Amino acid sequence: MLVRDTESVPSQTMTMPGAVGVTMKLLVGRADGAPTFAMRQFTVEPTGHTPLHQHNYEHEVLIVEGAGVLHTSADGSGDKAIKAGDALLIPANQLHQFHNVSGAPLKFVCLVPVKFDCGGGECKPTPGS
Amino acid sequence: MLVRDTESVPSQTMTMPGAVGVTMKLLVGRADGAPTFAMRQFTVEPTGHTPLHQHNYEHEVLIVEGAGVLHTSADGSGDKAIKAGDALLIPANQLHQFHNVSGAPLKFVCLVPVKFDCGGGECKPTPGS
Repeated sequence: MLVRDTESVPSQTMTMPGAVGVTMKLLVGRADGAPTFAMRQFTVEPTGHTPLHQHNYEHEVLIVEGAGVLHTSADGSGDKAIKAGDALLIPANQLHQFHNVSGAPLKFVCLVPVKFDCGGGECKPTPGS
Repeated sequence: MLVRDTESVPSQTMTMPGAVGVTMKLLVGRADGAPTFAMRQFTVEPTGHTPLHQHNYEHEVLIVEGAGVLHTSADGSGDKAIKAGDALLIPANQLHQFHNVSGAPLKFVCLVPVKFDCGGGECKPTPGS
């Protein structure tokens, strides 16, 4: 039975190409014995963004604090405004990018199938999975 | 690509035995095409509580607002204080009960494997799963 204060979790700076001003905290993951999915919290600083990318697994997201734009293409078509209290499902193989266009941090939890719980680097499945 | 304002989601009153003052909003579930896990938001009113129960699947929880106690036994041994910003992993087959001992609502998101996304009633897996 794990109860973990997010304030106690160290932040990792996301270094993957296309990430600017993004840190990540792994709240619940494989090392905790999570069998199905992993919970990560991301903070995007003002003007920062995650990579515009896609992958073969879904995200479920809850915006916890702040506001921004979810880009779903390189040309801005399909942009969606996002704000605290929004729940998102980003299906597998769909382009997505979180962009903080506000003056305050954008914070969200993002859950993935646990075999793709890969921290702040490139996402690779667990060896053998 | 789903962006859903939690304020727009209707609340369902939890009617299962042992639930008092608990409502649920299904934020992302099977009907949305979620392939692996489902996201629900629960609100527990002051003095209210979820059932003290257990089941053969895990919960991952983020406390969004308020504070309370997580009971893990009938006699109160193992009680854990919980507050906004805490992330929880409740493994399969472990007793648990969320109890709001504060004067303000306790709000949390609780994720489950999608085949157990069962809304406010008794949890049963999807037929055939």
